[in-house]
Amino acid sequence: MVSPIGEMEAKGREAKAASRKLARLSTEVKNRALWSIADGLLSRKGEILLANERDCAEAKASGMSPAMLDRLLLNAERIAAMAQDVRTVAGLPDPVGEVFDMRTLPNGLQIGRKRVPLGVIGTIYESRPNVTVDISCLCLKSGNAVILRGGKEAINSSLALAKVVQEAAYSAGVPAGAVQIIESTDRSVVNHMLKMNGIIDLLVPRGGADLVRFVAENATVPVVAGGIGVCHTYVDKTANLDKAVAIAYNAKVQRPTVCNALDTLLVHADIAQSYLPLIGREWGKAGVEIHCDEAARRILQGAPSLKLAPAATEDWGKEFLALIAAIKVVDSLDEALEHIERYGSGHSEAIVTEDYSAALRFLDEVDAACVYVNASTRFTDGGQFGLGAEVGISTQKFHARGPLGLKELTSYKWIIFGTGQVRP
Amino acid sequence: MVSPIGEMEAKGREAKAASRKLARLSTEVKNRALWSIADGLLSRKGEILLANERDCAEAKASGMSPAMLDRLLLNAERIAAMAQDVRTVAGLPDPVGEVFDMRTLPNGLQIGRKRVPLGVIGTIYESRPNVTVDISCLCLKSGNAVILRGGKEAINSSLALAKVVQEAAYSAGVPAGAVQIIESTDRSVVNHMLKMNGIIDLLVPRGGADLVRFVAENATVPVVAGGIGVCHTYVDKTANLDKAVAIAYNAKVQRPTVCNALDTLLVHADIAQSYLPLIGREWGKAGVEIHCDEAARRILQGAPSLKLAPAATEDWGKEFLALIAAIKVVDSLDEALEHIERYGSGHSEAIVTEDYSAALRFLDEVDAACVYVNASTRFTDGGQFGLGAEVGISTQKFHARGPLGLKELTSYKWIIFGTGQVRP
Repeated sequence: MVSPIGEMEAKGREAKAASRKLARLSTEVKNRALWSIADGLLSRKGEILLANERDCAEAKASGMSPAMLDRLLLNAERIAAMAQDVRTVAGLPDPVGEVFDMRTLPNGLQIGRKRVPLGVIGTIYESRPNVTVDISCLCLKSGNAVILRGGKEAINSSLALAKVVQEAAYSAGVPAGAVQIIESTDRSVVNHMLKMNGIIDLLVPRGGADLVRFVAENATVPVVAGGIGVCHTYVDKTANLDKAVAIAYNAKVQRPTVCNALDTLLVHADIAQSYLPLIGREWGKAGVEIHCDEAARRILQGAPSLKLAPAATEDWGKEFLALIAAIKVVDSLDEALEHIERYGSGHSEAIVTEDYSAALRFLDEVDAACVYVNASTRFTDGGQFGLGAEVGISTQKFHARGPLGLKELTSYKWIIFGTGQVRP
Repeated sequence: MVSPIGEMEAKGREAKAASRKLARLSTEVKNRALWSIADGLLSRKGEILLANERDCAEAKASGMSPAMLDRLLLNAERIAAMAQDVRTVAGLPDPVGEVFDMRTLPNGLQIGRKRVPLGVIGTIYESRPNVTVDISCLCLKSGNAVILRGGKEAINSSLALAKVVQEAAYSAGVPAGAVQIIESTDRSVVNHMLKMNGIIDLLVPRGGADLVRFVAENATVPVVAGGIGVCHTYVDKTANLDKAVAIAYNAKVQRPTVCNALDTLLVHADIAQSYLPLIGREWGKAGVEIHCDEAARRILQGAPSLKLAPAATEDWGKEFLALIAAIKVVDSLDEALEHIERYGSGHSEAIVTEDYSAALRFLDEVDAACVYVNASTRFTDGGQFGLGAEVGISTQKFHARGPLGLKELTSYKWIIFGTGQVRP
C-alpha cells in the first residue's frame, strides 16, 4: 500500500517525464485527443453518473447544503455541456510554438522568443467535478502535464472523469502519464504538493477564499492565486441612468454566487436621489438584500418591498456570493477610488459614466485585474474575453492577471540564429 | 533602536505606499530623475569612494580573495560607467502604459491589456555595489518601488550609493519612499523578506547558487530565480571548424567568471579528431584547464602546453566560473541533447552546425532560457539582447525567462470600454 505522499511523489515524477514529450506533441495529436475525450465523456456517461451518485449520496448523508449539492451533481445535460467545452478547446489555436518579438540585431543575430509549455501544472480544487475535465483539457492543449488533486466530496466523480480523460488521451497518442489524478484525499497531500519545487511548475488553487489564501501563503512552488472577487460598480454623477440600472442589476443578479458578481455599489451623491430608487426597485424585484449606508438608507427607506439593512463595517470589502449588495453614497470620484483601493480584492471594478475624463481616470487609477467602463463586471471570464476557456482568474500581478487561458499556461524560450557571432 | 525586522517592515510599508504613486508617474519625471541620479553619482563621487574604501579595507582585513575584492572595488572609472548605464536606462522606452491585444468583441466591448508596474520589487544581493544603482534605476523606470538588501561586505558602498539615488530621485519628483535600502545586515532580515506577501510583489535574488537556491526554496513571495548557468556548446559533426573554434573560445575565455560562460564542450565523434586539437591550442594559449573524458584525452594528450585532467563525474553539470572547461565526445546529436537535458541548468545552450535539420532540432528540443545556433552563449544578457539592461537572468519558466528587462518588471491589467453591455 502506497502512502499518500508516496503516491504524490510517484505521480509527480511520471507527470514530469510525460511533460517533456508532451511539449513537442503536434497540434494534430492534441486535438485528436480532445475530440476523443469529448466522445468518451458521452459514451461512458453511465459509469460517470454512477460514480457521481455515490458522491451525491454520501454528501446528502453528511448534510451538505443544497447549493453545494447542486455544484456536485452531474447529469446527462451537464456531461454534454462538458463535452461541448472540450470541443471548444480543441477548436482554439495552439499557443505552443508561436514565435514573437523576432528581430535582427546590428551584429546580425536573429533573436526572438518561442512559446513553450510551462511543464507540469498542479491544481487543488474542491467539489466541482467538471474542473477535472476543464483543467486537464486546457493543460493538454497547451502541452502541459497536469496533477489533479480534487476534493473528498467529489472524489468518485473526479476519478471516473479522469479515467475517461486518460484512456481517451493516451489511446489518441498523448504520452502516458500526462494526466495524473491523486486518489488519496488525505490533507497531507496538499501540504506536500505546495513544496514540490522542481516537479510542479505552476500550482492553481481553485476553491474558496480559505484554500486560495492557504496555498498562496504556504506554497514555495509558483502559484497563480485568485478567484476572490470583491467587486465594485461606481455610478458617477454623469451616469446614464438606464445603463447604470442595467449594469448594476446584471452584475448583482445574473449569477450572484460567482466571483465577478457585484458586492458593493458606490453612487455619487449628485445622482443618488434619482438613481437609487430605480436600482432599488429592480433589485427588490429580484430579492436582493440591500445593506445601506446612512445616506442611501434615507433615500431608499419607505420604498415598497425592499429588504433593507444598515451596512455594517464588515460589509465593505465583503464578497457576498449571494443576493446581497452593499450601497455607499460617495461625494466624488476620488472617494470612490479610495474606497475601491481600500476594499477591493483586485478582481473586477466598473464605473458607469458619460464623463470622458472620469472614465479615463478610473481605467488608469484602479489597480485591478479587469477595469470596466459602462459594462457589467460579470464579463470577467476567459470565454467572454475571447480566450475560449480559463483555468481560473488571477488577482495577482505576477505571471498573468485576470482570466488564465491557454497562453497563460505557457512560457517562452529565446531562440537565437547566428552565423558565427562572438561577443566582443 | 529599531529591530532588523522592524526596519524591514517599516520600509516595506513605505515602499508599498510609494508604489501606488509611482505607478502613475509620468515618463518625463522618471527620466528626469534618472538623469539627475547619473549627475549625482558623478558629483558625489568623493563620498561614494570614501564609503567604498571602508568596505574594501574591512574586506581585505578579513582575508577576502582578490577576485571578490575586485568585484567590491569602486573607482572613478567604474562610477562613470555606472552613471552611463543610468543614462542608458533613461533612454529606453517606458514600458508602462503600453496597450496591447486590443480588440472589439462581437458584443461591441473593446477589450485590451494595459501594461502596469508590478508594485514593489525586493532584491537580495551580495558584494557588487553597482547592483544598488542598476536595480534601483530599472525599477524606477518601470514604475516600481524597490527594497534593496545588500550584502554585509559592501554595505557602506551600497548605503552611500542608495543615498545618492534617493536624494536625486526625490528632488526630481519621484515619490519619497520609492527606493528603500535596509541598513541591517542581520540574516533574519533575509528570512523575513521571503515571507512578505502583500508587500513584496517580486523578489530577485542576485548572487551565488546557494543564495538563489535558498530563496527559491523558502520564499512564499513571487521569486524570479536564475543566474546559475551550466552552459554547453555542442559542436556537431557538420560544424564549420573556424566558427566552432571562435565560438567555444569566446564562450569560455571572454569572461570566464560569469553565468553565461561555457562549462562543458560536447563534440561529435566524427569531428573530434580535427576539431579538438584546434580548440585545445587556443584554450591552451589562454590558460584554460581542460577536464577531458577518455575519448577527448586520447586526442589531446601530448599536445604542447595543455593543462589536461581527466573529467570527474562531478564535472558534468558543474558551473566552473573560472578558466576551466569539461570536454565530452558524443556519438550523436541525441546523446548531446540527453547530456544537456540531464546536466544543463536551463540557462544558455549552443549548437555549432551547418546541418539545417540539426539546428532546428536543437532549437526545438533544448529546454533552456536561451538556445543558440552558431553563436556564443556569452550573448545572454539584457544589453546584448537589445533590452537595454537587465535585473537578472531567469532560468525559470514562470513569469519571465532569460534576461529580465524593463518589460519583465511589469504586469498588465485588462481594460474594457463598454457602451452599456450586460452579460446575457
